[in-house]
Amino acid sequence: MEKIESIQNKQVKEWKKLLTRKGRKKQQQYIIEGAHLVEEALKANASLSHILIREDKVAEYDHYISKETVLISTEVADELSDAVTNQGILAILNINESEESLTLKKPLLMLDEVQDPGNVGTLIRSADAAGFEGVIIGKGSVDLYNPKTIRSAQGSHFHLPVIHADLYDWTEKLKQKQIPVYGTALDDRAVSYQMIKTPKNFALIVGNEGNGVHPDLLKMTTKNLYIPIKGEAESLNVAVAGSILMFALYR
Amino acid sequence: MEKIESIQNKQVKEWKKLLTRKGRKKQQQYIIEGAHLVEEALKANASLSHILIREDKVAEYDHYISKETVLISTEVADELSDAVTNQGILAILNINESEESLTLKKPLLMLDEVQDPGNVGTLIRSADAAGFEGVIIGKGSVDLYNPKTIRSAQGSHFHLPVIHADLYDWTEKLKQKQIPVYGTALDDRAVSYQMIKTPKNFALIVGNEGNGVHPDLLKMTTKNLYIPIKGEAESLNVAVAGSILMFALYR
Repeated sequence: MEKIESIQNKQVKEWKKLLTRKGRKKQQQYIIEGAHLVEEALKANASLSHILIREDKVAEYDHYISKETVLISTEVADELSDAVTNQGILAILNINESEESLTLKKPLLMLDEVQDPGNVGTLIRSADAAGFEGVIIGKGSVDLYNPKTIRSAQGSHFHLPVIHADLYDWTEKLKQKQIPVYGTALDDRAVSYQMIKTPKNFALIVGNEGNGVHPDLLKMTTKNLYIPIKGEAESLNVAVAGSILMFALYR
Repeated sequence: MEKIESIQNKQVKEWKKLLTRKGRKKQQQYIIEGAHLVEEALKANASLSHILIREDKVAEYDHYISKETVLISTEVADELSDAVTNQGILAILNINESEESLTLKKPLLMLDEVQDPGNVGTLIRSADAAGFEGVIIGKGSVDLYNPKTIRSAQGSHFHLPVIHADLYDWTEKLKQKQIPVYGTALDDRAVSYQMIKTPKNFALIVGNEGNGVHPDLLKMTTKNLYIPIKGEAESLNVAVAGSILMFALYR
């Protein structure tokens, strides 16, 4: 079994770049951390490049040892980990995205410039739990493969397709297929989500934490929805709002 | 106007302690940061001890200058700030909690050992938006006055009473007053939230991120609810689950 001890190792330097969006885009790989996610990746038959096990954890994780396993030193584990305390197991996965993975048979969630990785991950987890078909992350949003997004998604991106694509193109495409696209907005032209009867198949767009869905995109939607607010809060957290809508609209 | 330049200043050292739970408990004060929260505190007539303005921000924040204002150096601002980049304005507020602030005329949210400050803050924000009367934070939960909780609550704790109290005592008390208390659980004895008709007044308990509501507490409730999960996700984020329930149960 290969063993890497130094953070100066060329392969480690390449993996380290996967902690940045640029590095992930170039190498078409990403890192996951922790036994739970590695387990989910294996269960989902995700395309695996390497499993990295810290040398002091070999006994604990011996069931993960295969030809893709590399032993790493504590120093290398710390170098590649995004967590405050790493669990001593990481994996390098290949990015495999395909728009064809969306069959348009169940609802879709679309994210327009959602900036916080915790929000994006939580929305993916909720879309999974709500039984949605998939998630489309638009330009300007934080990406799925950000380590913090992956952590918040808790493995749900292995359960349903999550792709990065243009939301304007997709909105057009869905409307052409007679699939309604609902934006979310606080303006006068929006209707309460409690007032509409949703069909079995639709798409829901949630937007940026501060600015919501882009006005140009809201103009293209079938309808725009809002959640009536009773108290004095100005708005809801976007992951909360998106989740309330997914569970209320798709039963 | 008083001006404090050194982090060795005795007052600064006392304020610094407010970043810890122990310090807040002892001094019965807490720190808020940023113009938005200071504005909300003033609007709500929160009990204010001091407004701290960084010297380079005096012109920008001159409308906040009063007898409670203290000018501080950049060094002091950094010392007291929990944010990555501080906005140059903070306030020291007095903690004023009273169980009598809850009149039991509208629903209550109760938090049992919720650990993540972002989740507690988001739940307070959602409770505000859902029109709930107040929030009770049980023992073992992160406290309201944690700077990260305050940040996630986005000022909602100024809009509705948030108190720290014993959830077992409160569950008893509410039941004695014929106010139903709903726990949340994933076990067999729980019923889908979609299957119940809630009265105008009730309490909802959400629990720890990993373990849910404590089994002893679940035994005391009127009924325990769950959110049916359609996909493969094992669970929902607690702030999401609590918010879905608040909005669905109280319309």
